[in-house]
Amino acid sequence: MLYLIGLGLRDEKDISLKGLEAIKACDLVYFEGYTSKLECSVSDMEKLYGKSIIIADRNLAESGMGKIISEAESKNVAFLVIGDVFSATTHISLFAEAKSCNVKVEVIHNASVLTAVGITGLELYKFGKITSIPFDNKDIVAPIDVFEMNKSNGLHTLFLLDLNPEKGDFMTAAQAAEYLIQKGIPAETDAVACAELGSKNPGVAFDKLRSLNERIATQWAGRIPQCLIIPGKLHFVEQESLERYQD
Amino acid sequence: MLYLIGLGLRDEKDISLKGLEAIKACDLVYFEGYTSKLECSVSDMEKLYGKSIIIADRNLAESGMGKIISEAESKNVAFLVIGDVFSATTHISLFAEAKSCNVKVEVIHNASVLTAVGITGLELYKFGKITSIPFDNKDIVAPIDVFEMNKSNGLHTLFLLDLNPEKGDFMTAAQAAEYLIQKGIPAETDAVACAELGSKNPGVAFDKLRSLNERIATQWAGRIPQCLIIPGKLHFVEQESLERYQD
Repeated sequence: MLYLIGLGLRDEKDISLKGLEAIKACDLVYFEGYTSKLECSVSDMEKLYGKSIIIADRNLAESGMGKIISEAESKNVAFLVIGDVFSATTHISLFAEAKSCNVKVEVIHNASVLTAVGITGLELYKFGKITSIPFDNKDIVAPIDVFEMNKSNGLHTLFLLDLNPEKGDFMTAAQAAEYLIQKGIPAETDAVACAELGSKNPGVAFDKLRSLNERIATQWAGRIPQCLIIPGKLHFVEQESLERYQD
Repeated sequence: MLYLIGLGLRDEKDISLKGLEAIKACDLVYFEGYTSKLECSVSDMEKLYGKSIIIADRNLAESGMGKIISEAESKNVAFLVIGDVFSATTHISLFAEAKSCNVKVEVIHNASVLTAVGITGLELYKFGKITSIPFDNKDIVAPIDVFEMNKSNGLHTLFLLDLNPEKGDFMTAAQAAEYLIQKGIPAETDAVACAELGSKNPGVAFDKLRSLNERIATQWAGRIPQCLIIPGKLHFVEQESLERYQD
């Protein structure tokens, strides 16, 4: 039996009771920690969950999938994912492969940044296609194309930002704002930056792209992960919510 | 202090450890149960959480907001929401109002149908605007407009379906398929129906709108909630995933 278990956004205590119960029944517990980052150590997780954790790095998660699935044929295996379960193609493939091999698989969902951005007051139903900005973005225009498409439809655009937890590299909303300005988005465009969503004290800042950049670049140092939103057409209730994040 | 706590998708055990800890520290616990439905009773929740639960019906959640906020000025108050916290305008308003009144408010996120649909194999980043189909839809074309917009951009469309848990009314994916056909969407359009996302055994069916309707109308009776997706342009990995749900 394979359990794909979402861990939520922040630390070891964001797991659901159901997720914890499943882990406790497992013989092997893998943790995929290279597509995002929690604010706790693996040993914090091991202590709370009462199990040793095997780190699934990029190699293991991608090429070692067969190994995990064959283990799940005879054992209870948990595969822990930060956020919700289907945040990355690898996890979809693991689920699909397990099904193909007739290995029983159960999904235990959890919170995701895709809905945690609701804290901004922007309606979740009015987001368009989501895009992400990679570190190496000198020649990358896909995020701009997505933004233009969403904008023309009056929809909000969520920019997810590149990260490399293994190296401790996290793109900041300030860097994302800079990228957007460099690619020709007017510096006067309204935007919303978010940091540490899912924490006790998440950061939300609403401002012009240019000012946002100045305002949060130093103030939010170390507050990760971050993301950036350019709102589309606003309902007045959304506008009011955003204005609360203006100072 | 006001805690807005997501309960996730299925039953009382989908709450996070952090959410449960917060409830245990609360003097008053409200539960908003009119925008969705869990597969457990309020007394199951009371038993596990160790607290009496006050049902916040449509009236209390909307017009009694001032009462809840003033209670949270001197007491610890939990407001429990099915799915993730910011799924409805009411919850955004409650959060915003609390902030305005300088009442401390903490959000504890949880799983949402908006990311649980990832189980279909469709990439979450490739969904367009989300829309919902109301019961009284004879003259409603907004969902069709949203679908046409998403389609022209190659994006997937998620149709959320109306429900009235107080009356036990839940629109089914089969009814939604029928509505779409009546409004002129070709019956040969590929679609994906989902039922009981977040449960141990969620239903996913991929088929033409017309056949989907026939296939699940009786087979999925009572399996709620349901939703419907019309996929946009498919990557071959998405196509393969969907085909697994074809029989």
